Parts: sequence; structure tokens; C-alpha cells
Amino acid sequence: MNQQNRRIALASRPVGEPKPTDFRLEKGPIPEPGPGQVLLRTLWLSLDPYMRGRMSDAKSYAKPVGIGEVMTGGIVGEVARSNDPKFAPGDLALGMGGWQEYAVLDGKELRKVDPAAAPPSTALGVLGMPGMTAYTGLLNIGQPKSGETVVVAAATGPVGSLVGQIAKLKGCRAVGIAGGGDKCRALIEEFGFDAAVDHRAPGFPEKLKAACPKGIDVYFENVGGAVWDAVFPLLNDFARIPVCGLIANYNMTELPPGPDRTAAIFRAVLTKRLTIRGFIVWDFQAQAREFAAEVGGWLREGRIKYREDVVEGLDNAPQAFMGLLKGKNFGKLVVRVAK
Amino acid sequence: MNQQNRRIALASRPVGEPKPTDFRLEKGPIPEPGPGQVLLRTLWLSLDPYMRGRMSDAKSYAKPVGIGEVMTGGIVGEVARSNDPKFAPGDLALGMGGWQEYAVLDGKELRKVDPAAAPPSTALGVLGMPGMTAYTGLLNIGQPKSGETVVVAAATGPVGSLVGQIAKLKGCRAVGIAGGGDKCRALIEEFGFDAAVDHRAPGFPEKLKAACPKGIDVYFENVGGAVWDAVFPLLNDFARIPVCGLIANYNMTELPPGPDRTAAIFRAVLTKRLTIRGFIVWDFQAQAREFAAEVGGWLREGRIKYREDVVEGLDNAPQAFMGLLKGKNFGKLVVRVAK
Repeated sequence: MNQQNRRIALASRPVGEPKPTDFRLEKGPIPEPGPGQVLLRTLWLSLDPYMRGRMSDAKSYAKPVGIGEVMTGGIVGEVARSNDPKFAPGDLALGMGGWQEYAVLDGKELRKVDPAAAPPSTALGVLGMPGMTAYTGLLNIGQPKSGETVVVAAATGPVGSLVGQIAKLKGCRAVGIAGGGDKCRALIEEFGFDAAVDHRAPGFPEKLKAACPKGIDVYFENVGGAVWDAVFPLLNDFARIPVCGLIANYNMTELPPGPDRTAAIFRAVLTKRLTIRGFIVWDFQAQAREFAAEVGGWLREGRIKYREDVVEGLDNAPQAFMGLLKGKNFGKLVVRVAK
Repeated sequence: MNQQNRRIALASRPVGEPKPTDFRLEKGPIPEPGPGQVLLRTLWLSLDPYMRGRMSDAKSYAKPVGIGEVMTGGIVGEVARSNDPKFAPGDLALGMGGWQEYAVLDGKELRKVDPAAAPPSTALGVLGMPGMTAYTGLLNIGQPKSGETVVVAAATGPVGSLVGQIAKLKGCRAVGIAGGGDKCRALIEEFGFDAAVDHRAPGFPEKLKAACPKGIDVYFENVGGAVWDAVFPLLNDFARIPVCGLIANYNMTELPPGPDRTAAIFRAVLTKRLTIRGFIVWDFQAQAREFAAEVGGWLREGRIKYREDVVEGLDNAPQAFMGLLKGKNFGKLVVRVAK
């Protein structure tokens, strides 16, 4: 065990896009676990779009990270010391350890990770929060029916890729939106989507329309912005729109110019009887076991695939996170903090 | 029986507010019922906001009224002649007879109305389409729970007044929005709302906030516009917004100036986990019997009240309808076409 804990704290609240100076690398003593607590040595740190929200102090569903506090984040770590009889040194565990090399967490906030069942990093991706976001949002709110068209953006990401693959398992037409030709090829070749549309290529709205000849029955909203604009006119009667993220809007500092489309949205909600519903994965916490069993099973059977984008070293986390907000990652973004 | 049928046809499609010349009073022969058909003499004609949509040819959930065609509308009529053995002369029946003194309809499109059970005009209001809109939208989508706050606008109207009264029966705080002091007094004194807010009075948003000290859990959306703007910041986490009408927007000819609030709506949908869902009463047609039994029971027991605004004579229908779009009616607007 080295003698220091290196961690990345929030140095300042970003205005618009986060910049390197909004983060600060700090060193400090390795914390001591108290009664019932566990000291984890971070192996994998998850980087996810929701973290942008935590950097702001706008009211949201979770409390913001304070200035000077370590950035929040899920980790898979190895138990270094334990005051909880359920965890022994050497065990792997999942918890909200944050952007740091060592974290102390209450044993009851941790979930054991079995490295024999699946690669441990998947507890942060396809078998973790992003996977459960896809699974619960699509099935509870999207309610895809065989023969329907399901559209998702950021489709090579951990949420989008699972949304599309579950849609296929349910007999739907899966249409993925991604940025760039490589990602679009992967959607078809790796993940088995029926169609892929590059939102960066000219004529994106027309191409999306061509990819959805029967309109859109489920739009799994995780980006907002120009993708929503292209999806909106294609929505069918009774379309369902689970909303779990709006990455295209997160760096927005003011509302864009008009006209104000509020009335157009509501007109469509009424005349097409749309359902727009926001959710956070924890709203469906009661389905965690069902998710783990079903998606874990699909994974073992080779019926679903996942892709990871691995960044080496905690120091590279801020840069990787800033890239995530621009869609530079290709697959679930994880930081290998230690081996 | 007089020898002519007087009817009101759509003369031209309104741009913005309908004007008298968009309607045309016509005379013609009394139509003959064919096999399986029934000739009704209209007693009561219903005037409802949805009719504004039918005057436009914008794509919607129903086909527009054609230029020169009789205006669409629900009626309660007396059977004058019948080629359907289920209906005898003198029976009362409900159907989409339109704005005219005589209508021929297929017997299978008609529902018998029992004048001993309730005043026949209620088949167009509290026990008809508006009542069922309130009942099905509030219970299926709004899902009010005891102790929650339910807000509805156009609250002295047939939909709003029933929404508020059902909310009270479910143990909720019912807050009604209406235009003018008389209507607001009626909300409290006649309909038993907990609070009433006049959307025409200065300081409306602040007064609405004061009337909803615990925020808003269910907003039954039937108006849009400035009422939505005042409601929006008050919505609680997990609020439900059934959308059945947008009367404030119906005469809108173009979207208002910016900023474009699309991103603000979606941000709230996400962070507050809102559910916004449009519906048309016929989407819940399967619940028609349940509605009739339950609301009919409440009415007989005196647990709910209703109010009608009666206009005399078919000729006055266009003026009354134009007033409806401005909130000039006070209660369910019906036209007494004949006694």
C-alpha cells in the first residue's frame, strides 16, 4: 500500500463546458475505516454524464458536489481493510467511492462483486447503473412491443447499446444514433441494431426519417438537443419517451433563442397522446435483482454485448470526462485506477 | 314536425379566433333515415373546446370538419323516426348529431338516455364526454393519492369541476383556477375546492404558489398558456400531468417568441421525474361503464355537483362557441335547440 491517497476534487463550478481548472488533483493521507466501515483501494472508476449535474449547484434530484470535495463516482475497489464482517481483505466491492485511489465507505453502502461471474468493470456498466437505467427505463416506461420501432441516441454508450439490444430481444426495430461512421458501423456489426444514423453527418433528420419508415414508437431520451428535434416529428401516436439524460443540454448556460416551442410540444403530447416521463435509475431500485438476473443471463448466453473505453490512471479522469460530454468515448468510459 | 332542418355549417377555416363568418346557417330538407338508422330531433347540443380543432385542417387525432359540412357535436335528441328496433319514437338518445335541428345517425352509434335517471343534458356534461374525460384522465394518469395537491384550470367547466371534486373524494387538496371572482367563489362554495385562484387577477403566479403550499402533485392540463407557465415551477417530484386540452393555444397562429423553453421542460421532466401524458377520452372507452356507475352514483348521492350554462336556440351556437374559447361560459355550455 502506498502512503498517500490521490484524489480529484471539484475546484470550481463550470460555466458551460467544464475545463481542466475546474478539477484539482490533491494528495492526502489514506483514510481510516471507522466501525462498520471498509477501506477500498479503487481499481475501476466509472465516468458518467450525470456527474456534470453534480458539478452545478442548480436544484436537481441529488445534492451537488461541494467545492473542494472529491468528485462523486461509482467505483469497483478491492477491500484493503474492513470493519464490516461481510467484507474481507481482497474482496471486490462496488460503491460510490468517488474520484480517488482510496475510499472509506460504510459496509452497508457496498455491494460485493464476484470476479468469477463477469469482469469486475461490468459492475459499472452493462451490469451496473447504466445497464439498469437502460433496462428499467425501457421496460417500465418505453414498454416496447414486438414490431415497434425503438430509437436511442448515444447508442454505442452503455445505456444506448443495451436499450437497442433489449429492443431487439423484444422483437422491435432498433435504430441507433451515434456520432461518426465507426460508431455507426459498430451499432450494426457489434450490437445488431437494424439501422444506425450519424447525427454529425449532413441531412441527419432526413436520414433518421428514412431509418424509421413506420415512425417511432419508443424514443429513449438520453441526449436532448438536435436529436430530440429530429425525433419529434417522427413520433407515432401513443409513443413513449423515457427521459434519463440530456447530455446535449448539460453545458447550456442559457435557453436558446425562440420561437418558444412549448406549445408545439404540448400540441403533440395531446394530439398524439405521447407519454414523456423522466426517471432516475434508483426510482426502480426494487427491480435490481430482476435486472441482475435477466441481463446477467443474457450476457452469459452471449445474447447481448458491451463495449468499454478504458482510460489509464486517475490523472486522466478529468480529460476523459470532458471528452465524454462531447461524445469522444466509444463504449462505457471507465478509468483503470489500479490493477 | 316542421318541414325544414336548420343547421350550422363550417363556412371557412378560422385563422386565429373564429369569427361569425366562419359559420353559416343553412336550411334544407329533414333527412330520411335509411335501414338501421334513426332520425333524431335535437333537444340539446353540446359545445366543447375540442371543436376548435375540428375547424382546422392541421393533422390531429380526428378528421377535420370539411368546408360546407355541418359542425360536429354531441347532441341529445328525441327519436322522431326509427329504422332500428332498439329505438322507438319518443326515446331520448345521445349521438354525434352535429349543430343541427335534425340528424340521421346509425342506431349503433347512439346510446339511449334515461330521463328518469338524470336530466338529459347531463349526458353531454358531467355524465358524458367531459365527465368521463375528467374521471379517466385524473384516475388513470393523474393517480391522485390522499394528501396530494391537485390543480386544474377552467375549473368551473364540466371537466375541471369534476376533476376537483373527484380529487376531494380521493382525499386531496383541490386547487381550482378560473377567470373572475364569481367563478372563483363558485369553486369554493358550490364545488368544494380548497382554494381558487383567478388567472385574470394581478399576481396570478404568486397567488397560485400561495394556494399550493406543498407544491403540485397532479396538474390536470386542459388550458396551456399562462396557466402552464405558473404551474410549471410549482410541480413536485413525480408530479403527473394528464393533458386533455390546450384551449389557450387553440387560436395560436404561430409559436410565440423565445427563448425556446424546450430544454427547461425536459430538464424538469428529468430532475423531477415528471410524467406528461396526453389522452383523448376515447382512449379509455373500456371504462365507460365504470365511469357511468361511479360518477352516476356520486351524483345521485349528492356527493358531486355540476353547473350548466344554457344558451337558447341553435342560431346562438356560434356566438356561444366563440365565447367558450374566451372563457365566457360559466359551467357546461349547452344549447337548448328544442324543448
